Amino acid sequence: MKEIQVYSILEKVRSEKPLVHHITNWVTIYDCANIVKILGASPVMAHAQEEVADMTALASALVLNIGTLTTDIIAAMKIAGAVANKKGIPVLLDACGAGATPFRDEKCFELQGNIKIDIVKGNSSEIARLAGVAVQTKGVDAVEVEQNLIHIAQELACSWNCTVVITGREDIVADNKNALYRVNNGHHMMAKIVGTGCMAASVIGTFAAVERDYALAAAAGLCCYGIAAECAAEKTQAPGAFKERLFDCVDNLNRDIIEKRMRIS
Amino acid sequence: MKEIQVYSILEKVRSEKPLVHHITNWVTIYDCANIVKILGASPVMAHAQEEVADMTALASALVLNIGTLTTDIIAAMKIAGAVANKKGIPVLLDACGAGATPFRDEKCFELQGNIKIDIVKGNSSEIARLAGVAVQTKGVDAVEVEQNLIHIAQELACSWNCTVVITGREDIVADNKNALYRVNNGHHMMAKIVGTGCMAASVIGTFAAVERDYALAAAAGLCCYGIAAECAAEKTQAPGAFKERLFDCVDNLNRDIIEKRMRIS
Amino acid sequence: MKEIQVYSILEKVRSEKPLVHHITNWVTIYDCANIVKILGASPVMAHAQEEVADMTALASALVLNIGTLTTDIIAAMKIAGAVANKKGIPVLLDACGAGATPFRDEKCFELQGNIKIDIVKGNSSEIARLAGVAVQTKGVDAVEVEQNLIHIAQELACSWNCTVVITGREDIVADNKNALYRVNNGHHMMAKIVGTGCMAASVIGTFAAVERDYALAAAAGLCCYGIAAECAAEKTQAPGAFKERLFDCVDNLNRDIIEKRMRIS
Repeated sequence: MKEIQVYSILEKVRSEKPLVHHITNWVTIYDCANIVKILGASPVMAHAQEEVADMTALASALVLNIGTLTTDIIAAMKIAGAVANKKGIPVLLDACGAGATPFRDEKCFELQGNIKIDIVKGNSSEIARLAGVAVQTKGVDAVEVEQNLIHIAQELACSWNCTVVITGREDIVADNKNALYRVNNGHHMMAKIVGTGCMAASVIGTFAAVERDYALAAAAGLCCYGIAAECAAEKTQAPGAFKERLFDCVDNLNRDIIEKRMRIS
Repeated sequence: MKEIQVYSILEKVRSEKPLVHHITNWVTIYDCANIVKILGASPVMAHAQEEVADMTALASALVLNIGTLTTDIIAAMKIAGAVANKKGIPVLLDACGAGATPFRDEKCFELQGNIKIDIVKGNSSEIARLAGVAVQTKGVDAVEVEQNLIHIAQELACSWNCTVVITGREDIVADNKNALYRVNNGHHMMAKIVGTGCMAASVIGTFAAVERDYALAAAAGLCCYGIAAECAAEKTQAPGAFKERLFDCVDNLNRDIIEKRMRIS
Repeated sequence: MKEIQVYSILEKVRSEKPLVHHITNWVTIYDCANIVKILGASPVMAHAQEEVADMTALASALVLNIGTLTTDIIAAMKIAGAVANKKGIPVLLDACGAGATPFRDEKCFELQGNIKIDIVKGNSSEIARLAGVAVQTKGVDAVEVEQNLIHIAQELACSWNCTVVITGREDIVADNKNALYRVNNGHHMMAKIVGTGCMAASVIGTFAAVERDYALAAAAGLCCYGIAAECAAEKTQAPGAFKERLFDCVDNLNRDIIEKRMRIS
């Protein structure tokens, strides 16, 4: 991938300002909305079953995050997902906490059985669980997975017929058409605060709203987001300050910074 | 309006510390509570139908925000609104996302039909929609409205028999007794982050808790809030840092700053 | 208490990284998660009745906060509490807003009747109300209580058979085995922003996850948290900046800082 590709997707986000509809969790809902806004796009959060179809019909991408799922929220996700599928806009599932409880696993598979998930994103143990590995997530934090993560991503991409994103020290993006990206941007400070994983999903959803090659969109989004984190961490390693600077550095991304820093292979 | 009027309402907020009950959305709920607290008042957020009547009975103002509405939330709003009406405390409706889905429009009208709304606040397309203009809001972001906004505000003020606030580059406040204020404080940085619109409603609700001329309260509140944003933007134009400074600058408001900067006509 | 005891509990949090399950309110849910994460532990927030038993089964402590309670949330708390009791992990109840509405009082007593609460935490009027004093809380803010707070804490500790924490200018911790701690760390800036009370509960819950003497855990947690607030307030007295620094100073706590500053009697 060339730096120009990454930058041009970011530019498209900034010029098209796509509406990104979220049905998400109550912990990081503000941060997810804010990162989309600061990328230059337009976030909307709505979860009433009576309106999610209409809201999705206005949107250019749908981000589903099961961080604080309930059966009502899952029902809303199915309604919104069906509209998104029909309209042909990307549906991203952040499998937040998959592997922690049977309820989360079950609902992920139920969503996947009911709607076409275009991109599924999680940390190593979340994705491993969806791929059938017997691993127990520690709440919403990743635990060590012994199997090869690239292999897990590619297998799940084939079985779900979608793009798979595993976030971590190295982010892995694989789709079912042999695309494979390894993104080495990012900083360990991201793991010190709550919300960076959920925001990653919102970033990918926003990039996918303007780029139909979803693996490319995901890799480009993670690259930009990771570069912003690197810039923020150069300014501070204090967690409260880092989070503020992360938003500032997303706002500040430009072609030059991306060119100098991008590490996608 | 004189600067002394604006400042004296702010002083009254700080000395009386009114309790401001919110039934609001899950995206900006923290920011709404925090801005009320930093103004010197006392925020409370409660939405269970079993307790909203009791909570409103303790309060000096009621702020309703439909940002992430559900039918349960609307039912709670009706209960709280009825108590507020009976008690004679101001009810403010932030018509967040009106015009985006039929459900939002319908619920705004249902609230207005069931309880007396004293102040309705929205961006240009939200208020236009409530006034009957055929405009489609982009999620929760404003779209261009071709009609004259002052005319729309005044018409809605008469038909709803209340005070109408349209926020934007210039904020417009109109009531049904010929009051009209145009507030030109504020900064375009406010549009770069999520939550500034919802916080504006909380600020107005807090000012209305201590000043029964609601148009005056709304204009004074928006003026103070806008001045704080101007001060914050002079310190930084980075979005994460700006938001932090916005709280600091609200805390820092004094008569001198208001006198120098207020732009209400 | 010696400073080495306080520090060693913090060190245990950082090395064991306990999973702390919260069923909490929508206002401060992010801050509660973030403070736990920055302490070095692992927060998880989940409230669906279908999964709270499984999530609690993975956890080392359970924090219940009724800030935006509903009957569904209370039902989830009972399920989670029963699992926590059976497993022998600490259950902390933050009686947020007790005394404001009959619904809150009733639900606190209902929880206490259904599950074993190990630690109950509140401000002076919240705890006074649970102890049977006729006091009316102002939303979620404390009002003056005329009775002796230590006496109230000790009485409630005996009647509920648990550890009682009253936060305020001086924090009081009492249990039913004659332990009594008065923690004089902290700063009045904590009262200027929303969320510091809820975060205190999360801090205590996190310390109790690794220290089975709950009164000691509570006092040590409040001491560390209060010291972080003092450090933050030395850097800034602006409320937005203070909050960011509070997280940074929690991250920065070490034995030396604790030794110099701890004020527990």
